[in-house]
Amino acid sequence: MGATMKRWQLPSFGLRNLEQVEVPVPTPGGHDLLIRVSAVSLNYRDRLVVDGDLLPERPAMPFTPVSDMGGEVVATGDGVSRAKGGDRVLGNFWTGWIDGAPPREMTRHGLSLGGPLPGMLAEYVILHEDAAVAAPRSLADREASTLPVAGLTAWFALVETGHLAPGDTVLVEGTGGVALFGLQIARAFGARVIVTSRSAGKLDRARALGATDVIDTTKTPQWSGTALELTHGSGVDHVLELIGGDNLGQSAAALASGGRISQIGFLKGTDIRLPAVPLMLKRAVIQGITVGHRRAFEDLIRAVDRFGITPVIDKVYGFDQAPAAFAHLDRGPFGKIVIDVRG
Amino acid sequence: MGATMKRWQLPSFGLRNLEQVEVPVPTPGGHDLLIRVSAVSLNYRDRLVVDGDLLPERPAMPFTPVSDMGGEVVATGDGVSRAKGGDRVLGNFWTGWIDGAPPREMTRHGLSLGGPLPGMLAEYVILHEDAAVAAPRSLADREASTLPVAGLTAWFALVETGHLAPGDTVLVEGTGGVALFGLQIARAFGARVIVTSRSAGKLDRARALGATDVIDTTKTPQWSGTALELTHGSGVDHVLELIGGDNLGQSAAALASGGRISQIGFLKGTDIRLPAVPLMLKRAVIQGITVGHRRAFEDLIRAVDRFGITPVIDKVYGFDQAPAAFAHLDRGPFGKIVIDVRG
Amino acid sequence: MGATMKRWQLPSFGLRNLEQVEVPVPTPGGHDLLIRVSAVSLNYRDRLVVDGDLLPERPAMPFTPVSDMGGEVVATGDGVSRAKGGDRVLGNFWTGWIDGAPPREMTRHGLSLGGPLPGMLAEYVILHEDAAVAAPRSLADREASTLPVAGLTAWFALVETGHLAPGDTVLVEGTGGVALFGLQIARAFGARVIVTSRSAGKLDRARALGATDVIDTTKTPQWSGTALELTHGSGVDHVLELIGGDNLGQSAAALASGGRISQIGFLKGTDIRLPAVPLMLKRAVIQGITVGHRRAFEDLIRAVDRFGITPVIDKVYGFDQAPAAFAHLDRGPFGKIVIDVRG
Amino acid sequence: MGATMKRWQLPSFGLRNLEQVEVPVPTPGGHDLLIRVSAVSLNYRDRLVVDGDLLPERPAMPFTPVSDMGGEVVATGDGVSRAKGGDRVLGNFWTGWIDGAPPREMTRHGLSLGGPLPGMLAEYVILHEDAAVAAPRSLADREASTLPVAGLTAWFALVETGHLAPGDTVLVEGTGGVALFGLQIARAFGARVIVTSRSAGKLDRARALGATDVIDTTKTPQWSGTALELTHGSGVDHVLELIGGDNLGQSAAALASGGRISQIGFLKGTDIRLPAVPLMLKRAVIQGITVGHRRAFEDLIRAVDRFGITPVIDKVYGFDQAPAAFAHLDRGPFGKIVIDVRG
Repeated sequence: MGATMKRWQLPSFGLRNLEQVEVPVPTPGGHDLLIRVSAVSLNYRDRLVVDGDLLPERPAMPFTPVSDMGGEVVATGDGVSRAKGGDRVLGNFWTGWIDGAPPREMTRHGLSLGGPLPGMLAEYVILHEDAAVAAPRSLADREASTLPVAGLTAWFALVETGHLAPGDTVLVEGTGGVALFGLQIARAFGARVIVTSRSAGKLDRARALGATDVIDTTKTPQWSGTALELTHGSGVDHVLELIGGDNLGQSAAALASGGRISQIGFLKGTDIRLPAVPLMLKRAVIQGITVGHRRAFEDLIRAVDRFGITPVIDKVYGFDQAPAAFAHLDRGPFGKIVIDVRG
Repeated sequence: MGATMKRWQLPSFGLRNLEQVEVPVPTPGGHDLLIRVSAVSLNYRDRLVVDGDLLPERPAMPFTPVSDMGGEVVATGDGVSRAKGGDRVLGNFWTGWIDGAPPREMTRHGLSLGGPLPGMLAEYVILHEDAAVAAPRSLADREASTLPVAGLTAWFALVETGHLAPGDTVLVEGTGGVALFGLQIARAFGARVIVTSRSAGKLDRARALGATDVIDTTKTPQWSGTALELTHGSGVDHVLELIGGDNLGQSAAALASGGRISQIGFLKGTDIRLPAVPLMLKRAVIQGITVGHRRAFEDLIRAVDRFGITPVIDKVYGFDQAPAAFAHLDRGPFGKIVIDVRG
Repeated sequence: MGATMKRWQLPSFGLRNLEQVEVPVPTPGGHDLLIRVSAVSLNYRDRLVVDGDLLPERPAMPFTPVSDMGGEVVATGDGVSRAKGGDRVLGNFWTGWIDGAPPREMTRHGLSLGGPLPGMLAEYVILHEDAAVAAPRSLADREASTLPVAGLTAWFALVETGHLAPGDTVLVEGTGGVALFGLQIARAFGARVIVTSRSAGKLDRARALGATDVIDTTKTPQWSGTALELTHGSGVDHVLELIGGDNLGQSAAALASGGRISQIGFLKGTDIRLPAVPLMLKRAVIQGITVGHRRAFEDLIRAVDRFGITPVIDKVYGFDQAPAAFAHLDRGPFGKIVIDVRG
Repeated sequence: MGATMKRWQLPSFGLRNLEQVEVPVPTPGGHDLLIRVSAVSLNYRDRLVVDGDLLPERPAMPFTPVSDMGGEVVATGDGVSRAKGGDRVLGNFWTGWIDGAPPREMTRHGLSLGGPLPGMLAEYVILHEDAAVAAPRSLADREASTLPVAGLTAWFALVETGHLAPGDTVLVEGTGGVALFGLQIARAFGARVIVTSRSAGKLDRARALGATDVIDTTKTPQWSGTALELTHGSGVDHVLELIGGDNLGQSAAALASGGRISQIGFLKGTDIRLPAVPLMLKRAVIQGITVGHRRAFEDLIRAVDRFGITPVIDKVYGFDQAPAAFAHLDRGPFGKIVIDVRG
């Protein structure tokens, strides 16, 4: 490697301020890894961070955005024991959350990558060894880079907290990154999957990916009745709630007894609203989800290798095209947007 | 016993239609128990049933209301093995829910007592032996009769599904039956308890029962800030949500990381509404609760005996005063209203 | 159906006493189903019951053995609501265990089929509706009849109590009924499977069924080292312990950190023996298993349909060949022995 | 503090080699805490380490033994955020095990204090901040120093993995440190406790501490029958197995349906041996336990404060009396042996 590298950064918030700079390649100390980034993937969260709409406190500026990364370890600090040069690694979003409950103090290295901690949109990054996990052998870095946020979110909702079982019915809303991971994980576990979308074309693509049934919400805005019909009146066991607002009323109505809504996104408004009685009679659970811990991430990676899950990438952009990649996010990709950092 | 007995019944819905009649004492067949009722306790649910506001389908009329009962077995069918004459028993609200998940078909004897199944407001009742559990030895029938719905609801929320642990902080809303059971169970488990109420007088009584802290919501309608202060910023681990509506916004704001809201009541409206972001960041759970299963009821009864929990009864009415007892429900009792059937 | 039927029964214990008799077809009362038996399958337990070596108290004689049954409902008692004529059903081994913990009193209809309760080796049997579950649609009765004991035992060990996850490694001992169900369930869940056997021929057949690896314990009696090698030193996550005795020493040595031994069989002696230190350092669990509850049985049946699991039958005997079928058990079948009751 | 401190160390294994030396007070780097040790407590494990009988690989010599410590932070490295000067802290035995499953690699700071990592028998020690937890406010350092190994072991067995519930019956074997913590924790949770011991005098003291029942195993070596009588035939829900060997046969016989044996000690031999059939019929669990994780330790500390649990100390020795304190271990103390490091 050279002495310098390229990095995107924000001197102040706003996508138009995103600038590419040439800076020295950092040196890893103590328990740090120096990682040559191969690919990053974008999440809607990154867009909010870039626009200054997410973080309650302003991070150190200039700030480099983007949470998701796949790359290769090229140098290590003296104290490193979890990884070595040449290892292919991914970053663990909540850097200090290893297993069980998150530690009460997430102050030292317990915050999240890509805001408030520095992000991954650079040719080289530094990660504490505890925040790195081995990449899946069965995936190239482009695909692997989509796992840390979207993949783990779907896995944490369905498997880690949801105890997904064969024969369960999963309903996923839309066809973004988390939704399609939900679809693929559920199918791998032998679950039925219902996908909702306003786009007939996207529903066709979801079906091609294995969706058991689809509901076009342009035609059927009150979609819970259809979900009940498709399950012969039993209802669905899991909902990946990516819409929020009063859409939870539909989710609660569609739910089976003992079912679970994983609250993940809120496209339709930051307040959720639903009737109490079906929630109570069904002994249903609404579970807030924001990504997950490292142990579950390692479980996901093992399952990806075992089941041969290939993440769905809508489009790959080159490193210099980062602003265009962000703009694509606004148009609602089918699956993930990736930036090939070496491209 | 004589050949006839007194019973309250509704020829049609509406409290003013409640009538006392003299009917033959029934004969227990097969797996049935004939029980001489000693005391019944009232729940807000009973009021809704009487008014025709709860059951989706009209039960057989005339209909006898009231879910909760404590009494003594006086005769048994030939096939009975779970109880014998002289046993003191309570009724299990969901008669067919024994443990684990409720059976998919709750059709045979799987429905709830006091609507749609016949209720307990009579001198004698018939119960399938599977729907009866042994009463706690440490309580008289008056007190024991309050356990099946209100006691088990609080227990199921906090212990069975909530895994209440010593040192947890529990917030209970109001001072009705479920709330005070929540307070007593939580204290017995070594948890801190915060009680909210609009009445300073009731808060004083809650404190006398062991509440660690109280919040007067007349003075502090936005009470979540106070709950956070009382927990040094950590938030509360469990909320017994008895108000509903947009009060869940306060509950979510007051919650600790990993906390749980048990949705039980909806005095403030049948729609619940809350912001999605704190729910997600705290990985919080909202769990719908409607009473619980027989195994948990037996656990509760064991704990009542072990810890010496004495249910709080606001007032005891005589059998002939049933309409007055129902009217008292509307005024918001402190704890439970009981009807002494032999009184 | 005619007025009489054929039934095998034991006037006293001992396989040579098994006699076929002609008796009236019974009439179902109350909550009973009359079932025309299509097939039964044999378990090693049946052999012990026939020989008088299992039941602590002598059942009513003459006694009809065999726990497992698949058949069709042909008549129902007045009170039946869980099934109707024409339904294909299986019997639930522990007739009174529905979900969660078994009820404390297993006295009424809570005992097990085929001893002490009457067994299934007859053209018609009576079952309480609570003890019947719907057969899987994807299997004929011969295959379905193998599920109640052997299938559910493997499922209860791996899935219900073991929380089998994709990528886990399962070790099954031998190639009997429970072992092969363990193999098939584990493969369906995306787990790796190691099979041990003293027979190279059976290991070949296990491999053909999907075993990831096999260990010939004739060549490698101390097989734990091989299991560790096959898992790159990590060890196996689940052991279906079907041998018992000091074989648990090998199982404990082969186990991964946090691993689980399901104690199911004891071919090698009724005492189990193993070193304490690896058990402790690995925080391992030994879990006693004897079949499981009805809810888990329904889960298994759903999974069988979903994954297309086809039970492995070594040989099918005709109804009149029951003694020969029992004799086959002693020779160690590969998978299950079935008696076609209509054959 | 001065520039030097006193420390006990082993130039080679064997209690007679334990020597006190004067060495420089160490300087904390990065995430390290410098702790002025106030008290240490001894565990039987320490004896095995000192004798060279426990660790599979020889640690760096001279080696300082003892796992348990309570003390005060007197200086911190630059990167420290979890603690500050003046904090009273305890050490977390498995330094790298925070919550959930232990990390696969326990290589960096994931090993245990007092072997293979350096121990606490010194005036000052260095701990990584992640391996320190806040001491309970309600206990002085002498008492608090007994919690990290013995207290957490009992808590992990009964509460974290055993889900101890009010009304459960717990059987503890003997009156050593773990046993008495088990007794006190169980009583605090509203459980019944049966204590076994060969010493009538110790049983009297156990009764004074709250034991519900006691069994003198000198008089009743086959104690399981007595345990069944004391539980009216139900059996005990939890056994803290501190004896091992064929004593597990008694434990299994004494167990309730669904009961749990926590395998902790092995005074009677390193092989455990028990009959398979009761284990299976009771669906019992044997769980290997070696201390526990930091999150559970923090839960224990919270419960100690909440319930007012005061650890039982048999005798306190001065720092210079360390060899005598170790010798006392061999004589079977009632509760814990403590060394007052400042004494």
